[in-house]
Amino acid sequence: MRIRFFNARILTMETNRPIIQGEVWVEQEKIVYVGEKNKEQPTLCWDEEIDCDGNLLMPGFKNAHTHSGMTLLRSYADDLPLQAWLNERVFPIEAKMSSEDIYHFTKLAVLEYLTSGITSIFDMYLTPESIARACSEMGMRCVLTGAVNNFSQSVELMGRWWEKLNGNDPLISFLPGFHAEYTCSRELMEQIAAFISERKQPVYVHLSETQAEVKGCLERWGMTPGCFLDSLGMFEYGGGIYHGVWLTEQEMDIFQEKRVSVITNPASNLKLASGIAPISQFLKKGLNVAIGTDGPASNNCLDMFREMFLVTGLAKLSTGDASAVDAMEVLKMATVNGAYAMRLPQVDVLAKGKLADLILLDLHMPNMQPMNHIAKNVVYSGSKLNVKLTMIHGRILYRNGRFLISEEPEAIYEKANEIIQEYRNCSVPSPLRCKNP
Amino acid sequence: MRIRFFNARILTMETNRPIIQGEVWVEQEKIVYVGEKNKEQPTLCWDEEIDCDGNLLMPGFKNAHTHSGMTLLRSYADDLPLQAWLNERVFPIEAKMSSEDIYHFTKLAVLEYLTSGITSIFDMYLTPESIARACSEMGMRCVLTGAVNNFSQSVELMGRWWEKLNGNDPLISFLPGFHAEYTCSRELMEQIAAFISERKQPVYVHLSETQAEVKGCLERWGMTPGCFLDSLGMFEYGGGIYHGVWLTEQEMDIFQEKRVSVITNPASNLKLASGIAPISQFLKKGLNVAIGTDGPASNNCLDMFREMFLVTGLAKLSTGDASAVDAMEVLKMATVNGAYAMRLPQVDVLAKGKLADLILLDLHMPNMQPMNHIAKNVVYSGSKLNVKLTMIHGRILYRNGRFLISEEPEAIYEKANEIIQEYRNCSVPSPLRCKNP
Repeated sequence: MRIRFFNARILTMETNRPIIQGEVWVEQEKIVYVGEKNKEQPTLCWDEEIDCDGNLLMPGFKNAHTHSGMTLLRSYADDLPLQAWLNERVFPIEAKMSSEDIYHFTKLAVLEYLTSGITSIFDMYLTPESIARACSEMGMRCVLTGAVNNFSQSVELMGRWWEKLNGNDPLISFLPGFHAEYTCSRELMEQIAAFISERKQPVYVHLSETQAEVKGCLERWGMTPGCFLDSLGMFEYGGGIYHGVWLTEQEMDIFQEKRVSVITNPASNLKLASGIAPISQFLKKGLNVAIGTDGPASNNCLDMFREMFLVTGLAKLSTGDASAVDAMEVLKMATVNGAYAMRLPQVDVLAKGKLADLILLDLHMPNMQPMNHIAKNVVYSGSKLNVKLTMIHGRILYRNGRFLISEEPEAIYEKANEIIQEYRNCSVPSPLRCKNP
Repeated sequence: MRIRFFNARILTMETNRPIIQGEVWVEQEKIVYVGEKNKEQPTLCWDEEIDCDGNLLMPGFKNAHTHSGMTLLRSYADDLPLQAWLNERVFPIEAKMSSEDIYHFTKLAVLEYLTSGITSIFDMYLTPESIARACSEMGMRCVLTGAVNNFSQSVELMGRWWEKLNGNDPLISFLPGFHAEYTCSRELMEQIAAFISERKQPVYVHLSETQAEVKGCLERWGMTPGCFLDSLGMFEYGGGIYHGVWLTEQEMDIFQEKRVSVITNPASNLKLASGIAPISQFLKKGLNVAIGTDGPASNNCLDMFREMFLVTGLAKLSTGDASAVDAMEVLKMATVNGAYAMRLPQVDVLAKGKLADLILLDLHMPNMQPMNHIAKNVVYSGSKLNVKLTMIHGRILYRNGRFLISEEPEAIYEKANEIIQEYRNCSVPSPLRCKNP
């Protein structure tokens, strides 16, 4: 397929490059041209020429932390204290979830990612293979990571996934990871450190999401989580940590030195009352900050526009400085920095030779007007309603409110509700019986 | 016009009434039936029968605090410290704004309200008459309030508006108000108190938005703003205060006793680094809490979905309790409580005899699935993308992404950008010259 986008505003996200007026040409999965309208347009046979009508083409958003399969639990366990949420709702349900269930709920999440202009996800959950299958079938770029822990995922299993899920499908990759310090024994974490050391791999983990977690780690090991994991040699090849709400300066210095990304999840941190991550400080330390939605049980939506506003809004609030973390910095987090954290350099910016993961945002809508500053409009007032088109790996998967996938969205919704009905009918400890109002 | 909505889920927002399956009938501007499908459907001549396809009908959102005309300043003055924002950007531009400019920028805001399911706005700005004209022409329900202050609006002027803008247009009303304690002399505030006392009217005012404001008031009058205004007899007939981020317990008690609503503006309070209003405490005190977007210079979007998530998310964060301020409470704030604050009892709920201000939310979208809890889905993961239809006073003004108004949206955008170009070309002190990146 050869697709020509013309009459566009283009925010390539290359450093210091302003928004240009011009064209983007896509051939198969690759971008072959980004620039002004070429006077001598080659007589290429286009499969489609898309008039962008002055709207904004930019790299798709990278959702650098999610648990897609948790759409099952959306609006099932809200407005509860954190411990009740986890122990009485989330864990009992998760214990029942099959690989097939997660496949179906991941597909539901993928639909939502497309509506929000998300073109890559970084997914940590129970069954990477069925998540990979769902993403591959739907055309979503997905980096999976392990969730090794004392109960359900071993290092051996992660090793098998690491071998199986890399190199076979251009949309799918797998990076080592474990759930968290507080769900792994020291012995297990030493095994993980050995695994990544042997293979020279980065590692990804939930870290310092809550104050209680940090306190527990200090009691167990006399160190904060980042320092403790570093003492095990965990970060020799970089990687990333999710949340990082309660990081100390010392941990920030370690992550800066070891090129460990911090992936922030502001909506989840609000909804679960975890706190506000010190983003301004991260930036001052030179950390690579990316953005994730976290899973839909704790957010509950998969919307990078909401996350972007929260990243800057909460930074302004927590520093008392309305100039903190400006809009361009946030757009960089949602695109380039996410790609860096996910080891996807081929989709970070719009440029010749990169893979065609891009979105078209409708500027002909009231929330994008007037045009005082297009990038600030995207960050401060953009919404899913502005996403006109989402392209991944050269394929248009969502356009003008319609999904261009093989399956009917309605079939995916039906299947999701059918599975939930099965859970309701069975003996799940705290079943999905919260009546609608 | 007689319109029959059928095959709907209906959230009437009447106390403790669950979501029902059924129909809503509208005749001219009024709701004439809400309930189950009637077996003996009268042989009415419908002008239109709308199959809601199982989607959700509910009362439209009430945006209980905004400055619509500030769309002019959207994305013009972000990422600046508060004082620089106000003094170097907002005030110099506002000093140049004509009544006609505000008319055009209000129309731009109205378009955005419609996309967000907002059916009533409570607008405080420089030129109530031109705002009323814009809303009336477009079909938006608008309650205006005075912004009396030392510099630009006198009590006499407010009196003229109060007489002129009430009782003539069913969409328009006017309630007394003043900008803030810190922009009015004591003499002026005493005049305002006399005005409302004579006419037995409520009063509306910005109050305790920032800590600096409270400190200044304490220095001037030895009392916090709420106590000081109460000492002038300002709240004898109720009314409302905007923001209330830094209210004391004593002020909350006064507002509860005097039936003064608190209108919270969470996105604005984040973006301008003002703080988090103690919503949980307001509710414990029995205050009527409503929600506003504030103006688009400080938010920057006019999106009740984002505000609703922030109300509960920030309450959870600030109390450290993930069960604080549940979803139904937030929906009540965005509808019923807003109507109470704005003195619009005829549009608070969906019921026979009420005015037809309603919205249809698309549940056949990934962010509204699965259907574990419809109301929580709306609050925690709803977005503008879910708004299928917005009806005000019995007229459908927005449907399936199209505006059903006399003017082309594109003409409104063009006019807005044209006015900005004129500002750029003239000698505004700090003109709109921030280049797009």
